[in-house]
Amino acid sequence: MEKYMAIITAACAVLALVFALLTAKRVMNFSEGTDLMKKISQSIRKGANAFLKRQYKIVLIFFGVMFVVLGAMAAFGLVTPYVPFAFLTGGFFSALSGFVGMKIATASNARTANACRESLNRGLRVAFSAGSVMGFTVVGLGLLDISVWFILLKFVFKLNATEISGAMLTFGMGASSMALFARVGGGIFTKAADVGADLVGKVEAGIPEDDPRNPAVIADNVGDNVGDVAGMGADLYESYVGSVISACALGVAAFAGNIKGMALPMILAALGVVCSIFGTFLVRTKEGANQRQLLRALSRGTNFSAIVIALAAFPLVWFVLGKEHWTVYFAVLAGLVAGVLIGQATEHYTSDSYKPTQHLADTSETGTATIVIGGLSVGMLSTLIPVIVVAVCILVAYFVSGGANNASMGLYGIALAAVGMLSTLGITLATDAYGPVADNAGGIAQMAGLEEKVRERTDALDSLGNTTAATGKGFAIGSAALTALALMVSYIDKIKSIEGGAQKIANLSVTNPTVLVGLFVGACLPFVFAALTMNSVGRAAQSVVREVRRQFREITGLMDGKADPDYATCVDLCTKASLREMIIPTLVAIAAPIAVGLILGCTGVVGMLAGATISGFLLAVFMSNSGGAWDNAKKYIESGTHGGKGSECHKAAVVGDTVGDPFKDTSGPSINILIKLLSMVSIVFAALVVNFSIL
Amino acid sequence: MEKYMAIITAACAVLALVFALLTAKRVMNFSEGTDLMKKISQSIRKGANAFLKRQYKIVLIFFGVMFVVLGAMAAFGLVTPYVPFAFLTGGFFSALSGFVGMKIATASNARTANACRESLNRGLRVAFSAGSVMGFTVVGLGLLDISVWFILLKFVFKLNATEISGAMLTFGMGASSMALFARVGGGIFTKAADVGADLVGKVEAGIPEDDPRNPAVIADNVGDNVGDVAGMGADLYESYVGSVISACALGVAAFAGNIKGMALPMILAALGVVCSIFGTFLVRTKEGANQRQLLRALSRGTNFSAIVIALAAFPLVWFVLGKEHWTVYFAVLAGLVAGVLIGQATEHYTSDSYKPTQHLADTSETGTATIVIGGLSVGMLSTLIPVIVVAVCILVAYFVSGGANNASMGLYGIALAAVGMLSTLGITLATDAYGPVADNAGGIAQMAGLEEKVRERTDALDSLGNTTAATGKGFAIGSAALTALALMVSYIDKIKSIEGGAQKIANLSVTNPTVLVGLFVGACLPFVFAALTMNSVGRAAQSVVREVRRQFREITGLMDGKADPDYATCVDLCTKASLREMIIPTLVAIAAPIAVGLILGCTGVVGMLAGATISGFLLAVFMSNSGGAWDNAKKYIESGTHGGKGSECHKAAVVGDTVGDPFKDTSGPSINILIKLLSMVSIVFAALVVNFSIL
Repeated sequence: MEKYMAIITAACAVLALVFALLTAKRVMNFSEGTDLMKKISQSIRKGANAFLKRQYKIVLIFFGVMFVVLGAMAAFGLVTPYVPFAFLTGGFFSALSGFVGMKIATASNARTANACRESLNRGLRVAFSAGSVMGFTVVGLGLLDISVWFILLKFVFKLNATEISGAMLTFGMGASSMALFARVGGGIFTKAADVGADLVGKVEAGIPEDDPRNPAVIADNVGDNVGDVAGMGADLYESYVGSVISACALGVAAFAGNIKGMALPMILAALGVVCSIFGTFLVRTKEGANQRQLLRALSRGTNFSAIVIALAAFPLVWFVLGKEHWTVYFAVLAGLVAGVLIGQATEHYTSDSYKPTQHLADTSETGTATIVIGGLSVGMLSTLIPVIVVAVCILVAYFVSGGANNASMGLYGIALAAVGMLSTLGITLATDAYGPVADNAGGIAQMAGLEEKVRERTDALDSLGNTTAATGKGFAIGSAALTALALMVSYIDKIKSIEGGAQKIANLSVTNPTVLVGLFVGACLPFVFAALTMNSVGRAAQSVVREVRRQFREITGLMDGKADPDYATCVDLCTKASLREMIIPTLVAIAAPIAVGLILGCTGVVGMLAGATISGFLLAVFMSNSGGAWDNAKKYIESGTHGGKGSECHKAAVVGDTVGDPFKDTSGPSINILIKLLSMVSIVFAALVVNFSIL
Repeated sequence: MEKYMAIITAACAVLALVFALLTAKRVMNFSEGTDLMKKISQSIRKGANAFLKRQYKIVLIFFGVMFVVLGAMAAFGLVTPYVPFAFLTGGFFSALSGFVGMKIATASNARTANACRESLNRGLRVAFSAGSVMGFTVVGLGLLDISVWFILLKFVFKLNATEISGAMLTFGMGASSMALFARVGGGIFTKAADVGADLVGKVEAGIPEDDPRNPAVIADNVGDNVGDVAGMGADLYESYVGSVISACALGVAAFAGNIKGMALPMILAALGVVCSIFGTFLVRTKEGANQRQLLRALSRGTNFSAIVIALAAFPLVWFVLGKEHWTVYFAVLAGLVAGVLIGQATEHYTSDSYKPTQHLADTSETGTATIVIGGLSVGMLSTLIPVIVVAVCILVAYFVSGGANNASMGLYGIALAAVGMLSTLGITLATDAYGPVADNAGGIAQMAGLEEKVRERTDALDSLGNTTAATGKGFAIGSAALTALALMVSYIDKIKSIEGGAQKIANLSVTNPTVLVGLFVGACLPFVFAALTMNSVGRAAQSVVREVRRQFREITGLMDGKADPDYATCVDLCTKASLREMIIPTLVAIAAPIAVGLILGCTGVVGMLAGATISGFLLAVFMSNSGGAWDNAKKYIESGTHGGKGSECHKAAVVGDTVGDPFKDTSGPSINILIKLLSMVSIVFAALVVNFSIL
């Protein structure tokens, strides 16, 4: 079994990477358009490259220090010798996923704009292909990391299943650390540049969005690539790998060391890659298609993949786990369905086709304060459906997997639901990642002074992207909660496997004061983390505002278009500010579980993990949806309601949108990573806590 | 023992009520000032009375229905026959606390304004006396309810300690239901009127605050009384009674039915009344005192009471529990200290004497969006210290009470910490409740056209009130969390006492999926509740905005002061809107635990209670402190920084303040009640859940 499994998984990893490579080649065959377009795209590319290079330098120091720390721990027998290396590869592949995504995105933004000069359909093809490159790179690298390590540990080092799954959890920690750096750093960059460009350019100077006279305009476009693309790539790599390895770990526990518990999530993920590739071929439409037809084309691809995996998972579960466990299939299915439902709920609350966002636009009639209050309450109210969906998914996954008689099987079911939810990540990420490409293409069209209809087409692509991104967010956020729970259970198993650990973790009742206190502290962490990242965006944005104001004031002829602004300084400023600001939040995420463990002991850590997962899930949904609703309420007003662009209502909506920016693009998505990183760190430092905790 | 206890408690209840009565008489001897002042005060009184009368009518229907439901349950043996009656008395006394508070507040607003014509000190005396009436009415009625029921159940119906404490928990549910109606209804009224008056009056018409030409000005002042006074009175009655009866219930459990576990919290509360009365005598200062001296006078009173109770509690614990349990004293002390620390943290984050609020004012330089983001992140960050304080308090209270060897004793310690925290409520509430009186006095001074220095003095009193209110909030919020935890434990005990309940609640591990799902659902409830109440404020405020705009448009000569506005219509509108809007949130709070119980079973309910307590605590701190920081950042700018009143920075700060209004005065404080009401409802419907739950 293990040989087939390793071969299938590795083969699918290679397949995904080859597919990504071929797609990338196809994209590169398109023309970048006029010289000006090339030049603009070049500037964006340069800025994004410079940011990543400097970010990786800082991250390298962090990884170096952690490598030494883990090495020292290995020397004292607190972790296995594979841990430091696994940690590094996880971080490396996560970074690589972001890097490749950024490369292809910055290579295809001008190409998309140019393709849009011909037709909307052609633009979609280029942008969606770029998204596919990123999607399949992420899943390909993820599966590669998993399968290569598996082969190494199993066939070279001859470890048993428990040891293998234990070591594999470590590269999850590497991936999560890298993802958090990427999301937070990129998220601060993109929003600082965005807010800075908007506040001074649009509001004070009164020039349109993406106007070449705005000194922060290149930084703004760089931000889309380093935040929404590189950040998202690293993030989803982490989610994908995290869900698979946590399911592997629980599978080993559920089947008492038998490899089949590990085989299912790995082959399921591999199968998902194949289904996703087939799905991408369905994303095409006839020339001259309208926006609705394009959306249908995208949905056809994702729906097809989801349906095929839903069908194929049934014989897979039957074959891998044996017919006495065939009902586990419904756990996988529950995960898939839950992902779709959370996505639809997200769309309901944030799309201007539905009442919540339309009502939110109405509240702009009574001013800025009411639309801010309205957006906050839309976000808070929007937590209800996702919570119910996740709750039902947990119960279904647990009980269909036989949790009533065997808790380990039930918990394994919960982990498999997360894998099911992310199994078609290749294509869902493709539909998600093409959004920022289209956004950038729009910027280039504007700056290069292309005809109005090109901008209209890129806007159409962009708005299409918002709808598909909502679904993507549903999968990301739902899988984060389920994966974090699975990791919490892995932590408990890990503690039990350490000498003297079992009795220390015996009482996990919510009435145990250490669990209770852990719950409080854990639930507080996402709040503190969100506050830190919002403050970072605020500080970075203020420095951009000052710089842009300075340039408008000091560069003569800038407003008349006679002199060029100094784009590079703004990019540099954003880079420095965001890299400086990303460090504290990430260190908090790593230090907190160690500190809590050393003070409260293992039961406190479990409480902390549960508390952080629950409050993090709520806060992430709340912040993402508030931000999305404000964004689309603004767009709804811009489409001509409530007085349209420039009206008082529009001004109020712009404030709402600006408040929403760090909500939905910095703090909200970072929390998804935070809750998993907390678990990963706890697992890696488990032996330390068992041996040295106070309580 | 039980006789002494009953006599001491009843005697102190009477003492508190007599002291309140004498103080009220003293207040009434002051003059109401000019005829115009009397007329204005009369209008406010009329509006507040009308609101309460209509509110009580609606609440009466609710209580009638619940009485029948509980009666039916009693007939089927699902609750004891005392339950329906205990439920009614809890509601009645809670309502009475709010009513008396409102009566004295509306009787003393003009008197305070008039006293301020003479001196600041005289104004303080009247306002503080009014606050004292309310404070001692609340604690007096609370102790009366507790002691009379105790005497009845013990000496007339001859019940044992377990049965008594069980029945007493029921009047907690009555009190909490009433408190939620009062807080939500009053909170919506006050903020709808406030927002309506500000948005149209200050922003659109450009007239100052409390200008008699503003049609919503009377409604605004009525709002202070029905929200900040009547709402707060009912709320704190509930907190006070809740903390004592939950400690009684856990005391009975800890001492295996021995009455001494119940005696301690009751006598401790009674002793606190005496200390508080002594404290009030220290609140006086020489004529011509400045603001700092006045603050010192107030602090002297509260500090004295706190120190005396801290000293007196030691022999009390020794005597009541016996010397083998003397360390329980430190649990009481931990509660007292935690309350003070949370209050200080609140002040740090929300007072303009400290950096967070000053920095928040700075963010107004870059516009509305940045101050909104800044306020949200101040609030989120401000959760950290209270969480750590509560965490340490829980651990200390648990372990000093012997929780390591006997969990019941440890949990009893946590409940006693809440009682310790609220033991000096008589005087802390007095310093808290005088704020709205001073606020109203300022309104009357403005409307009656009194000299500038009167308004200055009432403003000084008001701002003094903000500082003391911060401390009061710390006590309210900290005790809510501890009491809710104690009630959760009481729920578990209650389930165990029901036939077939013990095995149903055996597995309370956080890895039990029903507990886990309960945690998710529970944590979601405060978010949904906050969203509902914010929406209610928004809708009610919009109707006020439309009415005020209509009056400005249709009543000729209104702006020139030649015609009177129609105050009554605005009051009526606020009344109708707030009463309509208070129903859904309250029903959600009552229906949720029953629904969760019937679906997920008892373990799900425990998860729900823990989740709601934790997320509710965080959300309440976040929302209250964000609101407080915006409010004071605005005041800081008004004091002359960042361009002062009328500047762009000030306009941005006004938006922040308006967003903060429902945060700090409607949603935030309501959540405190919500988390306790959820537990109370769960306890009352425990037998139903044990017998009829699905899982």
